[in-house]
Amino acid sequence: MNNFSHYCPTRLVFGEGTIAHLERLVPESKRVLLTYGQGSIKRNGVYQQVMEALTRCEVFTFGGIEPNPQYATLLEAVAACREHRVELLLAVGGGSVLDGTKFVAAAHYFEGDDPWAILEGARVSRALPIGTVLTLPATGSESNPNAVISRDEIREKSHFGSELVIPEFAILDPSTTFSLDARQTANGIVDAFVHVLEQYVTYDVNTPLQDRQAEAILSTLVEEGPKALAHPHDYDARANVMWCATQALNGLLACGTVGDWATHMIGHELTALWGLDHARSLAVVLPGVWRHERARKRDKLMKMGARVWGIVDGDAETRVEATIERTVQFMHDLGVSTSPADYGIPPEGFVEVASRLAARGMRLGERGHLGRDEVVAILKLCA
Amino acid sequence: MNNFSHYCPTRLVFGEGTIAHLERLVPESKRVLLTYGQGSIKRNGVYQQVMEALTRCEVFTFGGIEPNPQYATLLEAVAACREHRVELLLAVGGGSVLDGTKFVAAAHYFEGDDPWAILEGARVSRALPIGTVLTLPATGSESNPNAVISRDEIREKSHFGSELVIPEFAILDPSTTFSLDARQTANGIVDAFVHVLEQYVTYDVNTPLQDRQAEAILSTLVEEGPKALAHPHDYDARANVMWCATQALNGLLACGTVGDWATHMIGHELTALWGLDHARSLAVVLPGVWRHERARKRDKLMKMGARVWGIVDGDAETRVEATIERTVQFMHDLGVSTSPADYGIPPEGFVEVASRLAARGMRLGERGHLGRDEVVAILKLCA
Repeated sequence: MNNFSHYCPTRLVFGEGTIAHLERLVPESKRVLLTYGQGSIKRNGVYQQVMEALTRCEVFTFGGIEPNPQYATLLEAVAACREHRVELLLAVGGGSVLDGTKFVAAAHYFEGDDPWAILEGARVSRALPIGTVLTLPATGSESNPNAVISRDEIREKSHFGSELVIPEFAILDPSTTFSLDARQTANGIVDAFVHVLEQYVTYDVNTPLQDRQAEAILSTLVEEGPKALAHPHDYDARANVMWCATQALNGLLACGTVGDWATHMIGHELTALWGLDHARSLAVVLPGVWRHERARKRDKLMKMGARVWGIVDGDAETRVEATIERTVQFMHDLGVSTSPADYGIPPEGFVEVASRLAARGMRLGERGHLGRDEVVAILKLCA
Repeated sequence: MNNFSHYCPTRLVFGEGTIAHLERLVPESKRVLLTYGQGSIKRNGVYQQVMEALTRCEVFTFGGIEPNPQYATLLEAVAACREHRVELLLAVGGGSVLDGTKFVAAAHYFEGDDPWAILEGARVSRALPIGTVLTLPATGSESNPNAVISRDEIREKSHFGSELVIPEFAILDPSTTFSLDARQTANGIVDAFVHVLEQYVTYDVNTPLQDRQAEAILSTLVEEGPKALAHPHDYDARANVMWCATQALNGLLACGTVGDWATHMIGHELTALWGLDHARSLAVVLPGVWRHERARKRDKLMKMGARVWGIVDGDAETRVEATIERTVQFMHDLGVSTSPADYGIPPEGFVEVASRLAARGMRLGERGHLGRDEVVAILKLCA
């Protein structure tokens, strides 16, 4: 096992009816900026529940945060924080609203000219406190330090992370997810599934507990994901998917293990260039990464194959191949295509993706061994 | 899944050489009381490592905290805190040192006459901050709010819990556990194993992820525990056992599930009356609880049997029986007897145990359905 630090201080409040707990989670008289997205929370009753729980606070609102939250929009939210002397940010929505709100929290105290520097590695030394009411299980952003921000005018999608933007509390009421459509639901399942895989299907450093914790999430998503899709009002299925998504990226699976975030890094470029939903970019890239890296990842692919898919027959190559194909089939079964062509990505675009990553000096993969040529080769293996 | 809250804010720093991280974890010039037990930390080099990392702080020491930490001793530590105007408690040792230190942290600000009231339910409204260097993986106390304190003069062993005594940080260096003897090592494995079982082998409320997370710890302890016993200097085995013990009682397995802490509650009485090691009291009581409750726990016993022990043949009763016996065998294989007689507990003592619990109005079991008569029946089923 590798050495590690783990810090996950978010207070999680989980279950039906828990939005009402905001009343005790948010101190009286706080000046709160409620951030949200495209307005679904006004249609499904979440907005009303939040406002009813916060009658003792001074609540301002900022809506319109996009899927793949846009830098320009977030700068307006920063201005709103200053105008209203906001003391707490309350992100109500999915991962995009929450990621955007994390950026706002950090940018609020940024002292340079252009807070985009935060996305380029400038240190975050202070941030507004954040709470969240999560309505879309997928990214795990509700209890981790990470955020991904987009800036369409320069076609960039970049990440930053800081302990200072880990939400202080997160309310997860599975019944708020009843109204998610099939596309959003499937995207969330795929996103969480791939988060686990990127922390598990690497090379072995003797972490039997972490491996089993990863398999626990994968197997549960395999069982419960299709139920949530088929029966959107199945509370237990929604609850199990929601809890899986939180556990998939709260830092626990990274403890002592080796990660390989190549799928995410390449996927971000596909989203920046062709507008794919985040989860769908992962579905496209993961099979290519695995096919390219099948020798390095063989032991873990076989372990996953046996424990998650029950693939135990045949020689190693046969089992690795079957594991990759079964995983692709799982995404297809959820209604998520893994083909670049289906998203309008032309083969001649592969070089551009690889060049953009190379231009930032990125070396991807579990040993940092994937450069420009390897990324092109990976994308050619995506089908 | 049941509604739940989960809060586990401890910063965990895990791995060989991490005691040196104390230098950045403890702010400069802090007045620290280092609490410890019977002195093993002076023999195995841990004390020296701690002191070398804290040269910029003012460090006072308080040794002699017993296994099953004694109230009278802890009151002396409270006095030391006041005398030295201590700002941070640093518990260096195992669960007993840490539990005792949690009590000291809370008692420091207690305003009544006798801080034993904290063990009788008095609210903790303030506590000294706590950090820990854990040297014995077992209790999970390093990242939870719980503590168990003994008071031999009145033959009591009682529990309290408060978020205010959750350690702010915990350093877990598996190499500090190389010097544990077989008895301590086995006790730790059994303690962690039973912690998982008491949160898992109850009744089903549709928590497939939590169930698998429980099985992940159990299976890993079954694999790694014997390795740590056979090869005390096997770093990976020690690391895996240590990480299992932390994960077994950090609140995660309790999320949304039903607990049954009857084994712990009855076990505490055995320790208070006959001085059993905590883990051994659990090993004695668990089989009796399971035999008495086999009908209520049937589904989970069968699930555990299949997934942890590979018991899949025969009818339900056969599989339940085999699961109980296989679990008992695991404890025996670790060198831990499950027989009351082996610990000098006479059959006529069973009524006293049950009467003590009844006198406190305790109703035990997953549905609070176990009273005095049932506790006697359980103890008669312990063999």
